[in-house]
Amino acid sequence: MSVRIPRPPARGARTAVLLLSGGLDSGTCLALATRWRWRVHALSFDYGQRHGVELAAARRLAERFGALSHRVIPLPGLGALGGSALTDRAISVPKSALGEVPIPVTYVPARNTIFLAFALAAAEVTGATEIVIGANALDYSGYPDCRPEFLRAFERVARLGTKAGVEGRRLSIRAPLLAKTKADIAALSLALALAPGDTISCYDPGADGAPCGACDACLLRAKGFQEAAQR
Amino acid sequence: MSVRIPRPPARGARTAVLLLSGGLDSGTCLALATRWRWRVHALSFDYGQRHGVELAAARRLAERFGALSHRVIPLPGLGALGGSALTDRAISVPKSALGEVPIPVTYVPARNTIFLAFALAAAEVTGATEIVIGANALDYSGYPDCRPEFLRAFERVARLGTKAGVEGRRLSIRAPLLAKTKADIAALSLALALAPGDTISCYDPGADGAPCGACDACLLRAKGFQEAAQR
Repeated sequence: MSVRIPRPPARGARTAVLLLSGGLDSGTCLALATRWRWRVHALSFDYGQRHGVELAAARRLAERFGALSHRVIPLPGLGALGGSALTDRAISVPKSALGEVPIPVTYVPARNTIFLAFALAAAEVTGATEIVIGANALDYSGYPDCRPEFLRAFERVARLGTKAGVEGRRLSIRAPLLAKTKADIAALSLALALAPGDTISCYDPGADGAPCGACDACLLRAKGFQEAAQR
Repeated sequence: MSVRIPRPPARGARTAVLLLSGGLDSGTCLALATRWRWRVHALSFDYGQRHGVELAAARRLAERFGALSHRVIPLPGLGALGGSALTDRAISVPKSALGEVPIPVTYVPARNTIFLAFALAAAEVTGATEIVIGANALDYSGYPDCRPEFLRAFERVARLGTKAGVEGRRLSIRAPLLAKTKADIAALSLALALAPGDTISCYDPGADGAPCGACDACLLRAKGFQEAAQR
């Protein structure tokens, strides 16, 4: 198994705000940014999601990879808005439904827009020029706010809507996993010495924090690691 | 004094999410949208700002103008990010500093981006096609996230990053006060039967909720009503 580790998208010592959920994608981004020697401010959100165990994983990851800071933003209002199986307990998480519907019911309305908006605020305050998000090709298939054209549009918002942008500090949105399959990401995570047990991606973990093994996220992840192992 | 009341920017019965701070600008937007017979979901934020009295005004306005709903989103994380005199008690609110600096210290990092992101989530959930924000020409001079090009960029984010947009429901950002001076807005508010006492715009009100009369917002507002009265 040979894996090409992506080169930094920008030269020099960069400061980044990195969206860190504790899942495989954002964990791999953190390992990658650290490899690039970027100074990372990690940002997580507590939005009433079922998978609070992810936040514990995020904390461990931020510490292990030496993030400059790790902030958990409480977003009780996002869960209260409703409309997603991830935040609304009246909607059940579908099992083995991979690819069945155009937009999964686990889609949280405008989630990435909200997360990126807070990352932007954090970039203003910390002086970061980079915002790193683990959006990838598979998310792209179902979630509108993981598409490359969405991320480009948000980059324009970031450059126009901030003091930093007006004063000439150019902000960039980096999605280093965007063109990667889950197998690519699994392989990359292993190449960066990120153990599978360091991250959790389950939508519906048990009371003990163990992944359910049956939701979309568990299925995609297992398939990714399986394919990566066969390379 | 004759005031032309702006016509609706779109035909038919529209459902809107309206950002309502309780200040003159957003209050005028609410009165205007109501005149247009739009169905309004009002959205306010509690972000540790000094002017909690604004939220009480927002509640009264939403009730008086018959908003379909009024939700106050708690954003304790925004204040915690720091960097603004409005949320950070270590920075004092400047008095009589009108126009002294390119970007006022009362600028909250990425505030409108965060507010619009939540409005987008609310629009997804309520089925609204319009998002109304009270950004105006005067804000434009100091706050990067009140500029027309920023609002256009966010509209693109809204259309690309949502289930609604993907499924063909076209979302629009409406800023009906954008090209108006504070005097225009004061005059319009009076024409729409919005009494000055119904809104509060002070950055630094007293413990009794009374405006300080000396901050940027108080000075701009007083000047606006004065000029409106002389027309």
